[in-house]
Amino acid sequence: MISDSFLNRLKDILGPSHVDHSEAGLLTYAYDATPNFQSKPDVVVMPGNTEEVSKIVKLCLEHEVPIVPRGSGTNLAAGTAPTQGGLVLLFNRMDQILEIDKENLTATVQPGVITQTICETVESQGLFYPPDPSSMKISTIGGNINENSGGLRGLKYGVTKDYILGLEVVLPNGDIIQTGGKLAKDVAGYDITKLLVGSEGTLGIVTEAILKLIPKPEHKQTLLAVYQSMDQAAETVSSIIAQKITPATLEFMDQPTIGAVEEYAHIGLPTEAEAVLLIEQDGPQAIVENDIEQIADICEKHGALEVTIAETEQEANQLREGRRAALSAIARLSPTTILEDATVPRSEIARMVQAINQIAEKYNVGIATFGHAGDGNLHPTCMTDARDEDEMERVEKAFEEIFAHAIECGGTITGEHGVGEMKSPYLAWKVGERGLEAMKNIKTAFDPHNIMNPGKMFAKDTKKRITI
Amino acid sequence: MISDSFLNRLKDILGPSHVDHSEAGLLTYAYDATPNFQSKPDVVVMPGNTEEVSKIVKLCLEHEVPIVPRGSGTNLAAGTAPTQGGLVLLFNRMDQILEIDKENLTATVQPGVITQTICETVESQGLFYPPDPSSMKISTIGGNINENSGGLRGLKYGVTKDYILGLEVVLPNGDIIQTGGKLAKDVAGYDITKLLVGSEGTLGIVTEAILKLIPKPEHKQTLLAVYQSMDQAAETVSSIIAQKITPATLEFMDQPTIGAVEEYAHIGLPTEAEAVLLIEQDGPQAIVENDIEQIADICEKHGALEVTIAETEQEANQLREGRRAALSAIARLSPTTILEDATVPRSEIARMVQAINQIAEKYNVGIATFGHAGDGNLHPTCMTDARDEDEMERVEKAFEEIFAHAIECGGTITGEHGVGEMKSPYLAWKVGERGLEAMKNIKTAFDPHNIMNPGKMFAKDTKKRITI
Repeated sequence: MISDSFLNRLKDILGPSHVDHSEAGLLTYAYDATPNFQSKPDVVVMPGNTEEVSKIVKLCLEHEVPIVPRGSGTNLAAGTAPTQGGLVLLFNRMDQILEIDKENLTATVQPGVITQTICETVESQGLFYPPDPSSMKISTIGGNINENSGGLRGLKYGVTKDYILGLEVVLPNGDIIQTGGKLAKDVAGYDITKLLVGSEGTLGIVTEAILKLIPKPEHKQTLLAVYQSMDQAAETVSSIIAQKITPATLEFMDQPTIGAVEEYAHIGLPTEAEAVLLIEQDGPQAIVENDIEQIADICEKHGALEVTIAETEQEANQLREGRRAALSAIARLSPTTILEDATVPRSEIARMVQAINQIAEKYNVGIATFGHAGDGNLHPTCMTDARDEDEMERVEKAFEEIFAHAIECGGTITGEHGVGEMKSPYLAWKVGERGLEAMKNIKTAFDPHNIMNPGKMFAKDTKKRITI
Repeated sequence: MISDSFLNRLKDILGPSHVDHSEAGLLTYAYDATPNFQSKPDVVVMPGNTEEVSKIVKLCLEHEVPIVPRGSGTNLAAGTAPTQGGLVLLFNRMDQILEIDKENLTATVQPGVITQTICETVESQGLFYPPDPSSMKISTIGGNINENSGGLRGLKYGVTKDYILGLEVVLPNGDIIQTGGKLAKDVAGYDITKLLVGSEGTLGIVTEAILKLIPKPEHKQTLLAVYQSMDQAAETVSSIIAQKITPATLEFMDQPTIGAVEEYAHIGLPTEAEAVLLIEQDGPQAIVENDIEQIADICEKHGALEVTIAETEQEANQLREGRRAALSAIARLSPTTILEDATVPRSEIARMVQAINQIAEKYNVGIATFGHAGDGNLHPTCMTDARDEDEMERVEKAFEEIFAHAIECGGTITGEHGVGEMKSPYLAWKVGERGLEAMKNIKTAFDPHNIMNPGKMFAKDTKKRITI
């Protein structure tokens, strides 16, 4: 619990209307998109500028009050759930695109801007910000930076980290630092920019960012290929890459996902098919047309039952939205949905999907899988009910086996969602005890009093490996 | 000085033939490519595998002996000069390309492989490793990783860091860790991979790396444009970017550089011209031809006196080699050559070159400038004589003013060469005292006994800003 004097000092810094400790306010920010991690914060604050953030941090440090920076709370690993109480820091008053620099191809933004707003604003000026997490309609860029969000265009364009050139950061001691700049090259000291991106709010608070933009691709085409077997879909992916084509998007949905999406969106997907691939290419028109033609050939050669090239942007959008709606569509089918993102080298996708299905059967749980086939980032999604303790235990065991299997394939426990609190017991499986130790040393170097998003990334107890 | 028992233990670990403490051996590794930082190490060792590196580190930790990891010593900021003595660690026995994985588009390499060997090997298989530092014919990939080397293809393709997916690292306590993997997406914990790349051997020793490869571009064209004024060349650069063209290479040489290169290489450069741009595009043939045509138009519109499109690969190679030879050509003209790499946002190039010329005049020193115009990374190069103390003092003052001016333009003290010992007094100018503090905390977290390349990155005394 925080004291009245602490609350009063917060109100002095921010003005009383930007400090919320009403029951309704606390309940609103007691959770993020992750099931089973609800916990009320002690207070919710809405700073208006970096100096206010710095003052809040200094006050919290003095009183050792936990700080949880939060964008739109779409986090799927309990990274933004205030599980140790404390203060939730919102950025809805710091939501401006400060500058679009057409000469240096950069955008300077505050953390509270919605990702899609950035994409649309720069596209209206002929520029392009590629990272497109599925939640982009509501997620904030600050959240994307803290999580190093991926998205559907990751194969060709990379992830959020590849587009962050510089940051303004409030460190856990209240210091304000600037990192990087409008610079394609900068090797002055350690790369704090890239260390902060993906650090899940545990090392500091991002209060401004310089984004790298690129020219907007001239043309785009969308293709859907339907398969009777997962192996054929996976062979198609390998074959496209072997042909030296790098599609902008190369997405995969399995049969249960196709069924759920079709029931939700009615876009004419073949619900009997075992797998579909959604493939997009962008770039100069002639290249796109040529690539899509080659890709269609490759799909057919590997046994696709049906290959549809979208004729209109509306049709393309429908296919795209179908894939983007996968999580919402699956979420309607059961009281609780747990979405994971075990990731493997691209060559291991077919084997991994097969293993997921066997594990689901073994533990008698319902798992639908979709994801980014091009970069090996799969989203096995469990349809369950948090009230059924027996089933939840089986779900947890199933996911443990999935993580273990991903690592055995040279993969990782999380490709784009982050560790948060949910996956913290498994981090050592990927990075090893000595790697974990190195990471804890970094955390302590930045935040010796552990006030920044405590309990995330590092668990009190590490799970033992259940396999090997 | 190190003891006989220390030497004997080294010989036990490595075998006597891989431990060199002969006078000739020590002299050979007393320097790197940076003038004025010669200093003999105590011993030179050549480990054959990661376990040996780990044992060496543990021994050095026990005796607090400095370790300087070294590739080919092409460093230009005294990053690999053993200025505090100790042990120089060579990788000439760890020089294998271990695997090229065509399905996942990765290469797994040991640190001692020559950069160009990697490029040629993967290109022979239709793949492409883009980072191409000017020293690539002799530099090692380990050195490139430690320095986050840039190169001529940085504008379009980025730098070394963008192509490192995973590392094997021996930490300063002797622990061996693996980071990342054959994964396009991995957010399991802090990004130690990207923190290590560019850390100049101060945080650990890279013993293996997984490189990201891309398909080899199908076609390439090369163009040379000659200008009577620097402003026209800079306007051309801005205009190309504004036209949404991203050339693979966009290089600049000023008049003194042109003169030196022509005298050295006899390729027919117009020695009277104030500036030349070397521009290359790669990609699908139709796109390349179209881009180069547009670029030629833009050059002419901005007053280029002469625009030459290379007709043959041999002609292209000559132009390219001219630019790559700039440093060697200038180095012939005076006893001492000091090459810097102040970097500014692309929009500030013309102003920065103008400032460099004014500063050179003010301090009466000879400076030739060339560099990567597309990414604002300039190499003002001073032709001087280390034996002339008065001149050396003026050279240092001139470079201080150049650094200060770069930072005022939103730039940095080093774009691709690193901080090393030479630029350590200026690091705080770029990152601020509080940023420097954060970096020192990272160093201490990894290397509390300061055995890894001590004296680099962080100076005993920080220079005061001479301007503003």
